[in-house]
This record gives sequence, structure tokens and C-alpha cells, in this order.
Amino acid sequence: MSSQEGTVYATYRVRTESPERAKDVEAIAEAIAYEQTVELPPALVPDSIRERVVGQTTSIQEVGEYHFDVTLAFNAKLADVNLSQLLNLIYGNVSIYDGVRLVDLSLPDVVLANYRGPNFGVEGVRALTGVYNRPLLATALKPNGATPDALAEMAHQFALGGGNIVKDDQNIVDDFTHFKTRVIACAEAVARANDRTGKTCLYFPHVSAPASTLRRQLEFVRDLGLKGVLLCPFITGLDTVRQVIADTGLVHMAHPAMTGSFTNPRDSGVDHGVLLGSLFRLAGADISIFPNKGGRFSFSEQTCQKITQYLRAPLGNLAPSLPSPGGGMHYENLGEMGTMYGEDSVLLVGGGLIGHKSNLTDATRSFIDEIESHFPDAPIPPARLRSDDRSEDFAERLLKFSSDFQWQSRPTSPYKDASDDSFKGVRRIELIGKYGEKTNTDLRYFEIEPGGYSSREHHQHTHVVIGARGQGVLLIGNERMILSKDDVAWIEPQEVHQLRNETNEPFGFYCIVDHERDRPIRV
Amino acid sequence: MSSQEGTVYATYRVRTESPERAKDVEAIAEAIAYEQTVELPPALVPDSIRERVVGQTTSIQEVGEYHFDVTLAFNAKLADVNLSQLLNLIYGNVSIYDGVRLVDLSLPDVVLANYRGPNFGVEGVRALTGVYNRPLLATALKPNGATPDALAEMAHQFALGGGNIVKDDQNIVDDFTHFKTRVIACAEAVARANDRTGKTCLYFPHVSAPASTLRRQLEFVRDLGLKGVLLCPFITGLDTVRQVIADTGLVHMAHPAMTGSFTNPRDSGVDHGVLLGSLFRLAGADISIFPNKGGRFSFSEQTCQKITQYLRAPLGNLAPSLPSPGGGMHYENLGEMGTMYGEDSVLLVGGGLIGHKSNLTDATRSFIDEIESHFPDAPIPPARLRSDDRSEDFAERLLKFSSDFQWQSRPTSPYKDASDDSFKGVRRIELIGKYGEKTNTDLRYFEIEPGGYSSREHHQHTHVVIGARGQGVLLIGNERMILSKDDVAWIEPQEVHQLRNETNEPFGFYCIVDHERDRPIRV
Repeated sequence: MSSQEGTVYATYRVRTESPERAKDVEAIAEAIAYEQTVELPPALVPDSIRERVVGQTTSIQEVGEYHFDVTLAFNAKLADVNLSQLLNLIYGNVSIYDGVRLVDLSLPDVVLANYRGPNFGVEGVRALTGVYNRPLLATALKPNGATPDALAEMAHQFALGGGNIVKDDQNIVDDFTHFKTRVIACAEAVARANDRTGKTCLYFPHVSAPASTLRRQLEFVRDLGLKGVLLCPFITGLDTVRQVIADTGLVHMAHPAMTGSFTNPRDSGVDHGVLLGSLFRLAGADISIFPNKGGRFSFSEQTCQKITQYLRAPLGNLAPSLPSPGGGMHYENLGEMGTMYGEDSVLLVGGGLIGHKSNLTDATRSFIDEIESHFPDAPIPPARLRSDDRSEDFAERLLKFSSDFQWQSRPTSPYKDASDDSFKGVRRIELIGKYGEKTNTDLRYFEIEPGGYSSREHHQHTHVVIGARGQGVLLIGNERMILSKDDVAWIEPQEVHQLRNETNEPFGFYCIVDHERDRPIRV
Repeated sequence: MSSQEGTVYATYRVRTESPERAKDVEAIAEAIAYEQTVELPPALVPDSIRERVVGQTTSIQEVGEYHFDVTLAFNAKLADVNLSQLLNLIYGNVSIYDGVRLVDLSLPDVVLANYRGPNFGVEGVRALTGVYNRPLLATALKPNGATPDALAEMAHQFALGGGNIVKDDQNIVDDFTHFKTRVIACAEAVARANDRTGKTCLYFPHVSAPASTLRRQLEFVRDLGLKGVLLCPFITGLDTVRQVIADTGLVHMAHPAMTGSFTNPRDSGVDHGVLLGSLFRLAGADISIFPNKGGRFSFSEQTCQKITQYLRAPLGNLAPSLPSPGGGMHYENLGEMGTMYGEDSVLLVGGGLIGHKSNLTDATRSFIDEIESHFPDAPIPPARLRSDDRSEDFAERLLKFSSDFQWQSRPTSPYKDASDDSFKGVRRIELIGKYGEKTNTDLRYFEIEPGGYSSREHHQHTHVVIGARGQGVLLIGNERMILSKDDVAWIEPQEVHQLRNETNEPFGFYCIVDHERDRPIRV
């Protein structure tokens, strides 16, 4: 779904059976093109704006009785600010038309470049769990109404049995105080089990909160050492979810709550693959949950495969995501499910697992054994290699440095939210702290291009910085100091500080911070 | 839609034509009841949880061929944390069922008490505009792609003609820098026109941004002196919209982008009235836009009336909201529209107005005259009364004090976000600054209960405080001073400060701040 040059292509399936629209597909295509851009009758649109702004019909194909696929080309400048804008462009108003469904979407690199996408993706989630070459097994903590201790015990048993991911049921929502109690209980229960098994089961709490609390709850989860969360993007808002996931660096397991009204109707809404695949990936979903075929939601095999395909398809530089079919899965069809979804998937089993044996640990162990029996070639994961072996793996202890100030398996990430204008020309590499290392301090490398600067800010936690490349200026309060290679400086709590590059060469430095730390405050 | 005691009632229209469900309405009702609460097969749910948590069917009624209305009662504790949780409870997973539509919703006071609802509502918006006893006239700035100057000129002409509300088209989205340029241009253009007409046309920019930027953009709008914004709740996220609107105190004009996939299908989604009426009101919509009958979106008259009804129906203590039908409106049917929607409505006219005369000012004036001709009893608005007349009106200049430190027409509002724990026991009354007064300074009254305290914070703007009641402690940096009645103190830029009540009596004080000011920074 990546398109050429500066054009967004959206394909709509149009139903023409109503008499006033009969056969007039071109007119419907034009109506959509105006509706989604200028919202004015053609006669009221100046020529210059028509050319730049109004969508253009590029193809019309009959695809069935009274149904046509209409592809429109939109200027990518209409979708290059944020994901909400893209949603408005491709389906905002036409959602209210009768008989228009968005069935495909192709985005150009100029739009895709704005998206970080999944923080971890398939390989990152594998590295966190240490599970390779077979589907992961996930379950949900339920039922809503059970005590925190009961839910924690369930999480403990699943982790003891070798389960890979345990998430809250999306119906479990508490105020922040009860949330903390429950999440701490479950996190500790999983950690105790992990200590015993030597494996890494991940626990993802469900976070459901309006904007400001959302961020605080996610930071609480991260600061507790948990690696990910369950979110409902269509309830919380896709672009908000995208942003908080990018900012917090968590694994994003996405739940499809409220999406059925879009995906299910034949003649309206948005295609399953586009919504639960492409759009959820833009919102940073590392794992996308959807109803499995044969479960209580009646998705077809073809639908499930299309979602899977869109989660894995090339999409700019975005990592591929893991499909997570749920429902209708039980011990007997694990092999079939493994074949259908392949090794890069997360099999989400609830009732089928809980009801399998009286003891959840034993049930989980049976499920894992059964999955492994269908994927016999799963190698010993790199985490078990001796530490002086130098593999190229994500989870490796030695981070190899290359002369252009990149580190193996540590990608460059944006410094902060790209819509923030408090800084300029800064790139950031998370070296230690974001990839599951059990250290108390994080190490980051920042590089500021000529003329660039970091945000001017203060916070309670302290910095130690070490010059790594070039020469920069460190401002602390009203003090100004030059930081050169191997110079060391520190910043005390609440001191206002900023780093600037006033030279013609890149200025790079290491920055050491507490792993658990407060949020910087801009000044 | 308010229900008795601690119960949420949700009514679903269930289609039973598919063979595997044929006639088995009770079984479908039970499936929904389990799906939306515990998501487990009945056999796996302990009795104690079944009684407290699983929904109960309270009625089943046949309403048409193969269609039944099923009402379920849910424990209100499953929906008392936030709006996202409520959405998950009433329609999260069943959105993915085939043939289940949410057609009604009744909430108990214990849930409704969590919602502030519209900041202004019908009466508040009237007070801001000074227009009484007739529908308001609104238009949208378009087309997308026009320059800021062209859009500003359009806003200017509409305001000059006596138009009441001008909003951005929801397709207009820029980065924050361009947003500022455009919004300032339009705001100034409207203000210039208002100076000439002596009337108050409101300008509502469209704000579309992920969580953190959303708040900053809204604060920018508010600090510019604008009274409201256009938001797309279903794209941005209902609960996030609810929160930022409550926090910023702005008028919320809600756009229905992306909602059509819910409202339009017969056998899935959510009823128009429930979604665009009740749920949008919970999200704080003062004005809810929807497609008018006879326009390009094919809403029926009955649908439009149902939305209107739900916007005005009793709903806990929430203010009624204004319906804003758009599309299919022109000079000739303004009378009919006025009759259909009544005086408490906002007629949103785009193309019909722009195309009416070559000059938008003249067109607007004609439209206003035509509306007024159908509502001949509109009185002289209170804003035109002499200032020594003491009406009880919202816009009155004299704010009458009562001995319990309340002021007429000035409600107490929460100090800050209720989920914030940086303060304790503080109530706040916005006296001057939030109700359309054209002053450069705002005046607020704060009262701190025994043992309470305000947030410890600093900011660029300054405070002047005057003791009003009891005795408190003012902390500035490391200084500690006692503030008694009529004592005056000031706080300079960026000084860290806090007010505390260490006595057994309420401590109240006035606080004077610049109307345009930066956001406090907690420390």
C-alpha cells in the first residue's frame, strides 16, 4: 500500500442500486472527490483550487452486480499533517453516504515518512519474548469482576506454563488507583513466574483513559518495567494512540472494539485489511487482534487472511506487525491455525485454554507443546547463547558501534514528537533501557546537526552527559559551557538546560538518565 | 435517557434472519450479555461474578420482520470510570456481531454525575452570541486549499452580514505553525467585523491533533480570546474530546465525520439519536452537526428529529445542546427549517449561502433577515440593556455576591483536572474572563478547604492575590507568608508558589491574571 510520488490513492466500492444514482458511477466518484476535499458544489470552486485540491478519478471498475470500485487520487498535501486528517480525507464525510465503502488505500512515502509505526514489530516482539520460529501463545485475564488477586493468579499460572503474552480483558477498566493495584499484582505475579521458568512472559495491561490520564497510565506501566499495553484505538482515537505509543516506546497490542460497524457491512465502512491492518499499523500496532474464523464473530477465512496480509505488507519503513486471531481456537485446531497464520502470529486463546484442563499452567504447557510440535525447527533463541557470541540479534548484549554513529540493532528514532517545534535537528538512539535490559540507568545517544538544538527544559531527574562527536554548547541556567569529545558534565535536578550545535559538524553526546524518571518540563 | 438506580439499560435491535440464529432471540440476548461483560462461556463464569457483572435481559419485543428489540440491564459499576469504558460496555465487542444495532441507552445518575456535559449549552451559546428566540446562522470556511487571507475575508464578510457562528471546514488541517497563522487571520477578521457591527459573531477553528498537541492548540485558541472550536469526536476519540473541552472551557461544536458507518446501516451500528445526541453530549458537545434532511446525505426527517430530541432531552444535570443541521438548506426553505428545528438550533449553511449572492455579506444579511421574519417575537437581547438593569442573565455586568461566596450566574467549577493529585480541596469560580467579557485581565475566586492546597507551580504570567475569606499561607519559593482578608500579595514571573489552608475555616482569595497567559508548570 505505498504509492508513487505525492498522491494518496483511495479505492471506494460504490453501490448504485438506488434509483437516483443508477449507473451514474462517474457522478458518484466526482461527488466523493468534492465531498472529501472542498465540500462545495463544483461551480463554486475556483479553478486553481480544483486542480490542486479536489480528488481525481483514476479508475472505475465493475466488480459485481451494482457494485463498482472507484479509485480516487488525492494530493498528499491533504494528508501530511496527522492521522486524523488522513482519516477525514479518506472517509470522514463519505462515511455518511449510502453505499460507499473504503476498500483500499495506497499512501506515498511523503505521507508514510510521518509515521513511526510499530515500536517493535514482529522481530522486536520476538526479541522481547525470546520466542522464535513459531506462533506466540496469548491469553486474556478475565472475567471482569474477578479480584486483582484472582487475575494475578491467572496471569501467574499462564506464565508458569510457558505462555508468551497475557493481556487484560478490554472490559476491565478501573480508576487509576485500582488500576495501579491490579496492574502491580499481575505484573509481580508474572515476574515471579518468569523468575522460575527463566522465560519472559509479557503482561499487557489494558489502558483506557482520556488524553492526559492515558499518558500518565502508560508511563506508570512503562516505569513498572512492563513492555506493552492493550489499547482500543477506535475508542481512544487512532492519532492519540499513535502518539502516546511513539512517545512511551511500549509494545502496542491493539483491540478491535467498536470497529465492527466499519468492517462488517458490505456496502459501507472500511475494509477489514485497511482498518485492522494498515490503519492500525499507522497507529503503531505491533500486534493487531481480530476475530478468528469459525469463532463467535463469523469472520471468514478470507477476511482473516486479508488482515494478516495487510499487517505484513510493505508500508514505507514501518515494521510488519503480528496478526492475533482470537476466538474459536482450541487445542485440536492449533496446528491448523499455525498453518493458516504462519509462525509470525500471536494465537489469542481465552475460553478454549481456560476450559482445557482444570489447571491453567498445565493447559498452557499443553498448548505450547502442541504449537511447538507443529513448528519443529524452532531454534534455540539467541537469548540463550553465550554472551561472547556475537549474533546480530536484537537482544544481544554487545551493541556494535559503527563509525557513522549508529549501533547494531539500535535504530535511530525521532527525538520527540515531530509536531513539537521546541527543538531542531536532533536524532536519538536508545542504547540501553528500551529493549528489556534490566538496568537502573538508561543510556541514549543524541546527535544534533549544525544549527540544531534540543528542547530547553528541566526535570527532577539528573543527567550525566559525555561528549562523543564534535563540539557543542551546553546551557545550564545562565551558564554556557563548551562540551567536546569525552568532556563530562552533569545537570542537577530542576536545572533548566539545553544543548546546541553552533558548529558546522555534527555534535553527538551520550546521555545517562535514571530508568525510572519524571517527565521533562519545557521552559 | 436517565435510568433508575445503579443500572445502565442498553437496547439492541437484533436481526434473526440468519439460519443459525433463527428466532433464538433469548440466546442472542444472553450472548450479548456475556460478550459485553465477562467474555467467557457461561459455564466458565463463577456464580458470584455472574450475579454482579453479567448483563440481564429485561425485555424482548418484536419490532418488525426478523427484528427484535432486546433491552439489557448492566451494573453501572461497569461504566462509572470513563466514557471509553462506557463505549466498550455498550457496543465494544458486539459491534463485530452480525445484525446487532444499539438503538437506545439509559444511564443512571450515578454514571451521569461523572459528566460535565456541554460547557455552555443552549443558553450559554445564546449569551455568547447575544441572539435570542430564533435559530442561529452558521457557515463553514472553505474551500480547503484557499489562502488564510481568503478564508479570513470570507469570515469577515459573514460576520459583517450579521452571521452568528463561522467555523473551519473539518477538512482544513495544518501543522501548528500554519494553524496559528490561519486562525489568527480569521479571528482578527471576525473581530474587526464585530467591532463594526457591535454584534458577536463567533469563530470556531477546527482542531485536529493527537493528544498533547490537541491540548496546546485548544489553549492557543482560548488564549487568543476565541470562545469555541470545531472537533471531530469520532476521529479524535470521544473521551479525549470530553476531557479537553471540560478542561479548556470552550464551546464544542461537534462534527459527525466517520460516524456514518455507525448511524447508517439498518442492522448494525448505533442509532443516530444515541450517537449524535446522547453520546456527543456526554463528550461535551454544545452544538452537534448532522446532515439535514433533503441534503446530499439522505437523512430522513424522522432521523433529524430524533437527533434533535436526544440533544434536548433531560440527561442528568447536563445542559441541552443545539442541533445543527447542515446541507440542503437555502434561502427559500429557511422558514421550513426554522419550524422543523425550532428556535434553539444552529442552521449551518455552506454552498446555499455562498451561492446566494455575489457578496457574502449581503447574502448573510438576507439569510438573517429571512430567519428573523419567521421568528418575529425575538426580544432585544440583554446585552443591549442598560448596564444598571439587573437581569439574571448570563451576560450581565454586575455579578451579585452571596454570603456563601457564590456569585450569581457564575458556577463553581473544578479547580483543575479531577484526576490530578497535585492539589487538594480547592474550588474555583471564574468571575471575569470566561464569559465573553472583553477585559485584559481575568478574575477568579478560589477557596481552599481546611487542610487543602493548590498546585505548587510556576509560570511566566504574574498573579495578584487578595485575601477574601479566612486566613491562608502563601508560599513563594522558600518564603512563607500569611494571607488574611484584604491582604494583597503578588507573584512574579516564574516564581514557584502555592497556597495552603492550615486553619479550620475556609480560606478564600481573589486571583487576578492576564487574560492571555501561559500554562502553569507544576514543580
